[in-house]
Amino acid sequence: MQPKPNIVHLPVYQPGKPVEDVKRELGLTEVIKLASNENPFGCSPKAKEAISRELENMSIYPDGAAVELTNALAKHHGVNPDQVIFGAGSDEIILMICRAFLQPGDETVMADQTFPQYKHNVTIENAKSIEVPLKEGTHDLYSMLEQVNEKTKIVWICNPNNPTGTINTAEEVEWFLSKVPSHVLVVLDEAYCEYLDDPSFPDGIKLLQKYPNVVVLRTFSKIYGLASLRIGYGIGQPGVIRSINQVREPFNTSRMGQAAALAALQDVEFIAFCREENKKGLAYFRQAFEDLGLKAFPAYGNFIMVDVQRPGQEVFEALLRKGVIIRAGHRQYPTSVRITVGNAEQNAKVVAALTAVLKEIAVKV
Amino acid sequence: MQPKPNIVHLPVYQPGKPVEDVKRELGLTEVIKLASNENPFGCSPKAKEAISRELENMSIYPDGAAVELTNALAKHHGVNPDQVIFGAGSDEIILMICRAFLQPGDETVMADQTFPQYKHNVTIENAKSIEVPLKEGTHDLYSMLEQVNEKTKIVWICNPNNPTGTINTAEEVEWFLSKVPSHVLVVLDEAYCEYLDDPSFPDGIKLLQKYPNVVVLRTFSKIYGLASLRIGYGIGQPGVIRSINQVREPFNTSRMGQAAALAALQDVEFIAFCREENKKGLAYFRQAFEDLGLKAFPAYGNFIMVDVQRPGQEVFEALLRKGVIIRAGHRQYPTSVRITVGNAEQNAKVVAALTAVLKEIAVKV
Repeated sequence: MQPKPNIVHLPVYQPGKPVEDVKRELGLTEVIKLASNENPFGCSPKAKEAISRELENMSIYPDGAAVELTNALAKHHGVNPDQVIFGAGSDEIILMICRAFLQPGDETVMADQTFPQYKHNVTIENAKSIEVPLKEGTHDLYSMLEQVNEKTKIVWICNPNNPTGTINTAEEVEWFLSKVPSHVLVVLDEAYCEYLDDPSFPDGIKLLQKYPNVVVLRTFSKIYGLASLRIGYGIGQPGVIRSINQVREPFNTSRMGQAAALAALQDVEFIAFCREENKKGLAYFRQAFEDLGLKAFPAYGNFIMVDVQRPGQEVFEALLRKGVIIRAGHRQYPTSVRITVGNAEQNAKVVAALTAVLKEIAVKV
Repeated sequence: MQPKPNIVHLPVYQPGKPVEDVKRELGLTEVIKLASNENPFGCSPKAKEAISRELENMSIYPDGAAVELTNALAKHHGVNPDQVIFGAGSDEIILMICRAFLQPGDETVMADQTFPQYKHNVTIENAKSIEVPLKEGTHDLYSMLEQVNEKTKIVWICNPNNPTGTINTAEEVEWFLSKVPSHVLVVLDEAYCEYLDDPSFPDGIKLLQKYPNVVVLRTFSKIYGLASLRIGYGIGQPGVIRSINQVREPFNTSRMGQAAALAALQDVEFIAFCREENKKGLAYFRQAFEDLGLKAFPAYGNFIMVDVQRPGQEVFEALLRKGVIIRAGHRQYPTSVRITVGNAEQNAKVVAALTAVLKEIAVKV
């Protein structure tokens, strides 16, 4: 009954604190959570209707291959259905990629810091994570390329990067793809891409034809507002998708997740609204931080990482006591916090609370 | 971009044919599906209400640790919360057990045939499946024990077994547990156990204290009627559950799945009703098959495997043309079919259709 030696040290993921816990622990009646990059506007009402329609089918297994959703999504992106795979969030696509491609001793290259599920899954497969420090919060693709060798199986590029919110431009990503050996799978994790309309940002799906070693990850958890239902997807060339499919569990996504995603995909107005509101929120935060004399990384997703010039953990705890949940930076960003863009009211509250907290805590750079 | 050599031959799971596909392909207006061991009575209305209440929280991540559901379930079974882990169906618990415990070259012992996800996941981990033929459709625990050696990490016991529907008694299972070395994890997959009230059937959870190397798998997909939502669980000693938790994805079950399971767990009347109706259905099938001169395995779950004395695939196809979807037996059961117990009307229809089909197809034993 010995587990694999390479997993015994693994921590169990610590999610952002739930609102109910904070209310209970601190005796607060009103708490706002801007910690998990959730959509403050919920989801499309069409998605809710779709779920309600599925209530009569609760006992029926989902379509494991998610045929209807696959066809709709393939059409949406202008790819073939055999280029699409769904997972329980893009988390599960990351898991499946690791299970399909990594053997003990293989290497993968990623940024430090980036989305923690890459390293977590690589470790479970007993493969090695080569972590390349971010440069001003951005993937240092030049240094990452230097770490690629004959043992490298996967390179992970989180674009925009989580937790820093920065992007690599189309030019940078294309340069990297043109240099990286074609036997290396390059995962472009674009969980937040629907928030962007910056022309310098690369659309990974458009790169697939020229670079068949690319897999693009997307999700319905962010701008589509379906985090509760666990549905994300991968898009790649059919051979890559087939390999991932071979390790897919038969019924890995729920019937409700598939139905809601299908409906959410059609509601382009809702997505456009969320994108615009998010832009306003980012602009509001940028100005507020400037007024407070704080420096933030250029933010492109629905969150922003700002250097509060004080221990991030202390600022996190002080904000918590004021009923605002955010995330403290850690490791190389000990004086930063990551704040999700909320609605206008939430954004104003977090800025007011942060303004007060900064006065309470002494500067320690 | 080479996948692991041990997965390249893996087939993608072929689920039972969806009703809509059969209607379309065969131009039928009425089709009944008794192929996937789904609950013909749906789920508890309380579960539907719970889902409806969650519609306002679609954009909020689920509680990754499923604290509320864990506490309720632990109480239900008289175990501690740290003995419980949830997965996206018990499928995902199987996946997590393999990811946590198996290294390349390890061995696991299982029946042939049994639930295919054991072997599938063992293969993905590049470990070895030692398959021990069933004896009259039942796990041959004596021969399975003979296959246990110092390389054995896991023994899988599916009780009742899928697809044969047979059980191993408490006496047999306890004998096995008393003999198997304590370093071997014994997975008791009891997906169908709530359908039983046979006193000879062992309750795996009661065995945990004496045999800490046991993990019990259960699911909300069968008698609870929540297959669409993907929620199952494992119960074991805290050390084992902790190891499985270390490879769990942060948000592996959905908010809706957790809410529905919590509500479904409370509705004991619904479960009692389904159990009684299932018993009537099994008795009806047994009598009908006897009248048709067919021999069936003793069935304890919500399905029955019957030897139709003709190629199972031909019988499957002939029934399909009559609008009845079941499963054809294969490999060592080429003249059998597996039929899910439906409601009384569905059961009568499948018997009528089978009676007609048996006249159409010549006996080939």
